[in-house]
Amino acid sequence: MKKLMVLFMLLIAGHCFGQVDDQKQMKAFFDASLSDGKAYDWLNYLSNQIGGRLSGSVEAQQAIDYTKAQLDSLKLDRVWLQPVKVPKWVRGAPEFAYMETSPGITTNLAICALGGSVATPLGGIKANVIEVQGIQELQDLGREKIEGKIVFFNRPMDPTKINTFEAYSGAVDQRSSGASEASKFGALGVIVRSMNLRLDDFPHTGSLNYGDLPIEQRIPAAAISTQAANLLSTTLKLNPDTKVYFKQNCKDFGEVDSFNVIGELKGSTYPNEIMVIGGHLDSWDLGDGSHDDGAGCVQAMEILRLFKTLGHQPLRTIRVVLFMNEENGLKGGKQYAEMAKQNNEKHVFALESDSGGFTPRGFTFDCSESNFKKVQEWKALFDPYLLHYFTNGKGGGADIGPLKTDGIVLAGLRPDTQRYFDHHHAANDTFEFVNQRELQLGAGAMASLVYLFDKYGVTPE
Amino acid sequence: MKKLMVLFMLLIAGHCFGQVDDQKQMKAFFDASLSDGKAYDWLNYLSNQIGGRLSGSVEAQQAIDYTKAQLDSLKLDRVWLQPVKVPKWVRGAPEFAYMETSPGITTNLAICALGGSVATPLGGIKANVIEVQGIQELQDLGREKIEGKIVFFNRPMDPTKINTFEAYSGAVDQRSSGASEASKFGALGVIVRSMNLRLDDFPHTGSLNYGDLPIEQRIPAAAISTQAANLLSTTLKLNPDTKVYFKQNCKDFGEVDSFNVIGELKGSTYPNEIMVIGGHLDSWDLGDGSHDDGAGCVQAMEILRLFKTLGHQPLRTIRVVLFMNEENGLKGGKQYAEMAKQNNEKHVFALESDSGGFTPRGFTFDCSESNFKKVQEWKALFDPYLLHYFTNGKGGGADIGPLKTDGIVLAGLRPDTQRYFDHHHAANDTFEFVNQRELQLGAGAMASLVYLFDKYGVTPE
Repeated sequence: MKKLMVLFMLLIAGHCFGQVDDQKQMKAFFDASLSDGKAYDWLNYLSNQIGGRLSGSVEAQQAIDYTKAQLDSLKLDRVWLQPVKVPKWVRGAPEFAYMETSPGITTNLAICALGGSVATPLGGIKANVIEVQGIQELQDLGREKIEGKIVFFNRPMDPTKINTFEAYSGAVDQRSSGASEASKFGALGVIVRSMNLRLDDFPHTGSLNYGDLPIEQRIPAAAISTQAANLLSTTLKLNPDTKVYFKQNCKDFGEVDSFNVIGELKGSTYPNEIMVIGGHLDSWDLGDGSHDDGAGCVQAMEILRLFKTLGHQPLRTIRVVLFMNEENGLKGGKQYAEMAKQNNEKHVFALESDSGGFTPRGFTFDCSESNFKKVQEWKALFDPYLLHYFTNGKGGGADIGPLKTDGIVLAGLRPDTQRYFDHHHAANDTFEFVNQRELQLGAGAMASLVYLFDKYGVTPE
Repeated sequence: MKKLMVLFMLLIAGHCFGQVDDQKQMKAFFDASLSDGKAYDWLNYLSNQIGGRLSGSVEAQQAIDYTKAQLDSLKLDRVWLQPVKVPKWVRGAPEFAYMETSPGITTNLAICALGGSVATPLGGIKANVIEVQGIQELQDLGREKIEGKIVFFNRPMDPTKINTFEAYSGAVDQRSSGASEASKFGALGVIVRSMNLRLDDFPHTGSLNYGDLPIEQRIPAAAISTQAANLLSTTLKLNPDTKVYFKQNCKDFGEVDSFNVIGELKGSTYPNEIMVIGGHLDSWDLGDGSHDDGAGCVQAMEILRLFKTLGHQPLRTIRVVLFMNEENGLKGGKQYAEMAKQNNEKHVFALESDSGGFTPRGFTFDCSESNFKKVQEWKALFDPYLLHYFTNGKGGGADIGPLKTDGIVLAGLRPDTQRYFDHHHAANDTFEFVNQRELQLGAGAMASLVYLFDKYGVTPE
């Protein structure tokens, strides 16, 4: 009985010391990130010295060179580039649109080509416009009402969704499938209301998907700013005969060579268990990609820096992967997972930050119940940092998705989402809209989660 | 037994219906605020058509007239102005500072007078500088090292505090008491590092307090931007003989007439139980006071609009008070509490929003344990809106503080705090830094809390 009592007390004490150690280590991560972090400086360079980094561009290659050099400077165990073929699509010279309410009376409209769109004919397209609230309405109207026209998809994101990503999911089919659907009914082109909850003058790009539509049936598609969409909609009600002209010169250059950038710290005890932390290095071309996803890249890099400078040797191997081509192909994520499989690497954990550099609120997970139970037991450790949102079943991130196996824990940083779609894929996704502390808090949160899963391990299934 | 069973089932059903009703009503508040709210439009006017509203200024009076007219347009039961005497302090013509590293070699420094400061002599002040980390160091140095110099208080806000208001509290004594303390040791003037966690070029004003120091012993005090503070500090290390010149022309005009703006909806059942919702209508003069505290005013107004337009008649009287003079005197808050006492009004609840218009995270309270227990029982109702922070003992807000009695519930909206001190009391506290949805979510949260306390009542002590 006495022995049992002692054992019990030792267990209690061990548990308490464990908790105190965890609190201390997490505070060390947060303090170092907030006092002396590098993430913001790195982002400043990526955003202001390089800028938008669309796959296959010179800027994307500059970002590869820069981040590799920065990882090299951290004196990690290994830094390398992983080759990956990526699509190269170029926006091309002036995009331009106006509406014409009567012959010669025109008002400019703020548009941008959707990623992957074909060009208009050299002289542009001018046609009558049919406004629809979505693909269903398009189908209800049928060929008679659509043929020869420009289809204007104008269903807004739902402002009552508290999670703005849900509002995005509820509207983005217009952008991704609008052109291919409208083409089936003989439309000449498509204009889509920007995926933006705010009224402003920035058109927001993003990928469309023509599916298996033959090239000759692909019609050009552009995003229109929310203000211009409202103006066009009002004008069409007053004068249904209003015409829209638009012209864009985008071009597809096929596949080109690029890279994922990878750096790792070898685990002391389980070097063959790999924990991936990632963001995507490519971005759209309109802004400088500070939130999407420069922020995620520099946060991932910061984790390694924090482990190194605080002298915390991980038990497992921590590998930062800056994925190429999330925006228009996901080739980097797919290639990384493919190579991991070929090399028989054992990935136990992957964490992505790709929801903006805003104040972290928690993490989403895609993992087994037993692993999620651990997360729930750690919740109190995150309380001092006001992280409160931990939910399973919502995935981790696009780039780490291809790593999914039964045993792995996939996780995604979940920042505050309210401002994200003000900037997403638009010319105002720029450095000045990232707050240094918010970015640093995200890195502290990520380092803490990695630390906990490294220390306590992932339960295999 | 059968009767008891029926009673029990009725109670359960009643409880469930109550919960469902509450969920529905709260969703109605949030939906209406997010879809069709007025708060952002009102703030646009206050900020962009009126601007900074320092007590006693023409702009403060314009804001009184405007908000009263807007409350009138809501067809409330009563709208009125409550007279209050407020101090009138004016910044005056050019404030200016430079450092001189050797005769004639100067670099400008971004400064602004602290609120309530006296002017420099007409020709300004030029003197050697002694940098200190706080009042204790000043006292340790003593008169010999201080006399005839400008004291430069340069202790930064602590970046490792997650709650930035704690970092503010830990540094603001330099601003409030620095001048009076330095004067005791014969200093000629004081320059204080801005209360800002970010490195930028904006000096942040705010009140100082000379206490009972005789007028002839009051020395001028200015805030210096964080960038300029770093520059000055570095320069002083290289050349301790560096001099600083500064000049400011502020003037105190004594007390003038002003008003609190008040609107109310009479309670249907307990009209004599008053629930106050407030923000402060005055602001500093450098920016347009959008976050501090235009946001709080328009959120408070929005609560009444939501109750009216959704046709929700409160049981208790809901009274919006836009307080005058929080920034440099708190005269409006004190006068309101004084009049409430004189009129034997029974205040059961007061809620203030004065921490910026950012994403709401929860509420702070100053109330009895029994009332706070109710709040904790309502937490699940706030979950869908990601409000998670409910804490007692941290107060409600400066303006409602004077209403404190044993029975009352004081509450404060607690938004995300990370960006607040980037803008607080500075020229960049402007409209474009308020996000419409974040502002609207705050109003929805406030309306919900008011609704719950109105429905379930406040437990008297």
